Amino acid sequence: DYDKLDKLTIGVCGGDGIGPVITKESARVLEYLLDDEVKSGKVEFKVIDGLTIEHRAEVGKAIPDDVLEELKQCPVILKGPTTTPRAGDPWPNIESANVAMRKELDLFANVRPVKVPEKGIDWTFYRENTEGAYALGSQGVHVTDDLSVDFTVTTTEGTERIARLAYEYAHKAKKGKVSIITKANVVKTTDGKFLKLCQEIGKEYPDIVTDDWYIDITTAKLIDEKRRRDFKVFILPNLYGDIITDEAAEFQGGVGTAGSANIGKRYAMFEAIHGSAPRMVAEGRDKYADPCSMLRATVMLLSHIGRQEKADLLEQALDICMFKEKKLVITGRDNGATCREFGDYVMETIKALQ
Amino acid sequence: DYDKLDKLTIGVCGGDGIGPVITKESARVLEYLLDDEVKSGKVEFKVIDGLTIEHRAEVGKAIPDDVLEELKQCPVILKGPTTTPRAGDPWPNIESANVAMRKELDLFANVRPVKVPEKGIDWTFYRENTEGAYALGSQGVHVTDDLSVDFTVTTTEGTERIARLAYEYAHKAKKGKVSIITKANVVKTTDGKFLKLCQEIGKEYPDIVTDDWYIDITTAKLIDEKRRRDFKVFILPNLYGDIITDEAAEFQGGVGTAGSANIGKRYAMFEAIHGSAPRMVAEGRDKYADPCSMLRATVMLLSHIGRQEKADLLEQALDICMFKEKKLVITGRDNGATCREFGDYVMETIKALQ
Ligand SMILES: CC(C)[C@H](C(=O)O)[C@@H](O)C(=O)O
Ligand SMILES: CC(C)[C@H](C(=O)O)[C@@H](O)C(=O)O
Repeated sequence: DYDKLDKLTIGVCGGDGIGPVITKESARVLEYLLDDEVKSGKVEFKVIDGLTIEHRAEVGKAIPDDVLEELKQCPVILKGPTTTPRAGDPWPNIESANVAMRKELDLFANVRPVKVPEKGIDWTFYRENTEGAYALGSQGVHVTDDLSVDFTVTTTEGTERIARLAYEYAHKAKKGKVSIITKANVVKTTDGKFLKLCQEIGKEYPDIVTDDWYIDITTAKLIDEKRRRDFKVFILPNLYGDIITDEAAEFQGGVGTAGSANIGKRYAMFEAIHGSAPRMVAEGRDKYADPCSMLRATVMLLSHIGRQEKADLLEQALDICMFKEKKLVITGRDNGATCREFGDYVMETIKALQ
Repeated sequence: DYDKLDKLTIGVCGGDGIGPVITKESARVLEYLLDDEVKSGKVEFKVIDGLTIEHRAEVGKAIPDDVLEELKQCPVILKGPTTTPRAGDPWPNIESANVAMRKELDLFANVRPVKVPEKGIDWTFYRENTEGAYALGSQGVHVTDDLSVDFTVTTTEGTERIARLAYEYAHKAKKGKVSIITKANVVKTTDGKFLKLCQEIGKEYPDIVTDDWYIDITTAKLIDEKRRRDFKVFILPNLYGDIITDEAAEFQGGVGTAGSANIGKRYAMFEAIHGSAPRMVAEGRDKYADPCSMLRATVMLLSHIGRQEKADLLEQALDICMFKEKKLVITGRDNGATCREFGDYVMETIKALQ
């Protein structure tokens, strides 16, 4: 309960690529909305630099120690996308900073809402966020030159806590239904365990119908205009959650429109669901980056810390700017608005609503 | 080269659930189209019973020995869907017969075309079919009560042969582009290897542009009406191939419309991409099952054995029955045509075209 804190420290961490540009606009809006609380000393912001690929590569760590220490001083974090090294990149083969942060801060639930009222879509994805194919993602083994192995890990506690959170949400928000998505017909040991444990938690909620589907057919069902309306709340192992939330966000306008909450017991981190778009920076287009996904994450942050009115205000402003009024359009190129201009537009819209 | 054989034996294996019903209709069409060759002794059919869940459960094997022996006498197989035991089912925890057959007959390539001309979709998926998350799918370990592990395996040979097949196809069919789909930013060891090896094979084909994407964003791109037109040929590790081909088939009318070729050096097996639909049987609706996916698989079979004219004829008939004329519609219930009636319709259409 954040209200019990003397002072709530919100970390703002820009990341790489287009990260700093879009984080700056989101932080500006957030600071404006919380300005009275900053003045009264209830809230403070802490800017965390150093989660850049250059610094990470230099020290050879997914999250450098000094950065991790700073992050741990912030119960709530707004984070820009970070670049994950790829084969052929000049960086060493370090783990994704995203994935590392989820593990280091034990952010076990990745909550991603996707809502398109006119299509009857109102989904909330509860993605397990620290295990599965991600648990030992950087620790696979090249057994021989010819044979390589990766591992998928499922634990009882890891599964039960994400299931519990999802069912609690479904119960409180009166969603009526939870769908468990696995590939338990093939990945029998871990997904089988995941499915069984979720079903058991489900039995404690008589007001919720539980069904389960395999991940392959689920990606098809989401496209089916009739059948997709039946889905409400999803529980998914890490990798399937990763895959299907990108697909789902597309119906809402793409990964650029969807925010993501990474929730743990002690920490909560809010981010865009898209990447750092290094190509945009390389082509000098980062100032045209779209901050909407980060702004959606900011809505989730405000709601998470109990500032629901401010969350609603920002959400309303975003709906106006992105869908209803659309006075400015972001295209990612110089034929569209800049990130800064769009930020101004959102600020003006908020002020007009106040 | 099947023409060098004295006699080509085609196995017909009904499977479970709706399998026997839809396989029967497909085999009827196939036998009609190859009738002259059966009469002249060039082709023979071999019906393989016994790949039922009852028999598999009885002997506790994904493919009973006697069935495997029969299958191995058939260089070409038409196979109905088979039921994979799920937690809570009365069957023992045996591996999927599908997955086992792909491994036993070393059917390393799962080729799945999806074509929707009016949407600019013309995709061919080359799914690696024996490794990845499927390699040891039934051999994960419950390390403790709390911790379970599954394995993902990638080999050099396994990757190179699927990549080679895909690039050869892209080259011969003048597709111009191949996209390699992985999650190499997280599943670094195996997917990293897969990506790198595919890229290396790609360098041998100067007429083909190679790009690569992560599986999560790819599921979004397929929905984007503009960006999806850029995709032509895909190479994917087993699990991602499984997932994305169900999504892709949805644009064409659903998994009920897509056939699948499982290709190896010595054997080739053709099947529907959907499952055995045990619920339809339980509700007595199996006679209303849709044979279209199996009939598409039959087109692939005919083309594979070099009977291209017959393949084209069946494909043309299916396009008429499924999309152009639609005199009969399959709904899966008694308000639609039966599988048999639809089979008759396809037969009549073929005869009218001849
Ligand atoms: C950048 C990447 C490591 C990350 C993930 O796979 O989780 C991203 O796709 C996401 O969904 O947040
Ligand atoms: C039935 C199942 C084991 C199979 C798979 O996962 O490969 C199916 O989904 C497919 O795509 O052929």
